[in-house]
Amino acid sequence: MSLTKADVVQAGVEILDTYGLGDLSMRRLADRLGVKAGALYWHVANKQSLLAAVSDEILSVAGGPTSLPDVDVDLDAGVDEWARCFRRVLLDHRDGAELVASTISVGLGEVDPTVRLREFLVAHGFDVDGAGGICRAIVHLVLGHTMEEQTRSQLHDLGVMGEVDPARQERDFDLAMRIFIAGMDTAR
Amino acid sequence: MSLTKADVVQAGVEILDTYGLGDLSMRRLADRLGVKAGALYWHVANKQSLLAAVSDEILSVAGGPTSLPDVDVDLDAGVDEWARCFRRVLLDHRDGAELVASTISVGLGEVDPTVRLREFLVAHGFDVDGAGGICRAIVHLVLGHTMEEQTRSQLHDLGVMGEVDPARQERDFDLAMRIFIAGMDTAR
Repeated sequence: MSLTKADVVQAGVEILDTYGLGDLSMRRLADRLGVKAGALYWHVANKQSLLAAVSDEILSVAGGPTSLPDVDVDLDAGVDEWARCFRRVLLDHRDGAELVASTISVGLGEVDPTVRLREFLVAHGFDVDGAGGICRAIVHLVLGHTMEEQTRSQLHDLGVMGEVDPARQERDFDLAMRIFIAGMDTAR
Repeated sequence: MSLTKADVVQAGVEILDTYGLGDLSMRRLADRLGVKAGALYWHVANKQSLLAAVSDEILSVAGGPTSLPDVDVDLDAGVDEWARCFRRVLLDHRDGAELVASTISVGLGEVDPTVRLREFLVAHGFDVDGAGGICRAIVHLVLGHTMEEQTRSQLHDLGVMGEVDPARQERDFDLAMRIFIAGMDTAR
């Protein structure tokens, strides 16, 4: 059986979830698949391509941010739903926020999770520049928040810091989104 | 002459600025100072303490975010000034945003750059919870934005991506802050 790109990406996701971003390397990937590193280059040319492919896989999950929001939804509810879904997808994978931050925002991945959000904003009366700016700002806000959540839980697992208060993290995220959504109209 | 904590921290900042966060290790620090690793432990017990000490040093710069904003300033202008100053301080050091994100938001550093901002918000009528939530949200937004800026310029330096458009980064930051400031009142 020959190796497919899907096999390679799936193995990458498994390494990420089990060992974290620091261990997601070409060598580790080849070991896991039981092949020589040379066999991978057809599918992923280098480490950056590997990270981008794993990031794309995470973001393109069914029901994920690339499929939201529905254009019939009210503006505020749609943006809120998108942001919560984006955060959830990041939290579903170890170091998910750090990985996605290092790829999507610099344009290395092929999956832009904000495509539908941008269309949704335009359908709700924002011009293309304003919609793009809102998308980038909300991505930064969610990534900043979620990276902290993941760093905290990692340090907690290492015994370096005490218990994380999940209720406060939810309240903080709720407040950040409430502030952002309340201010969006200034981008019109 | 015996080694002081200030020497150790200064050498840490130099390693960060020259080689980046990936090279900021106890071994590298000892090499730079021409001492054995054991000589460092009196000042910084482990890598996490080293990162926290360098992060504290960066944040406590004169005229930095710990000294802003002045309570007489108008609410919107004060928050805007604080955020711009915080971003500038991060951009002043290679991988500054990533380093600070990994320490302040998880409470490992001793310097909280938002102390004055929180007092300022309370002086402008927010309760302590609302002010704390605003501080955390603005930190996440600025860190998310600035980490992307620094990742982009690093990838550009490596030849992995094309020219960065500094004007768009400024416009994006301006818009993100305008949105955030316009929505802050919902935290009252």
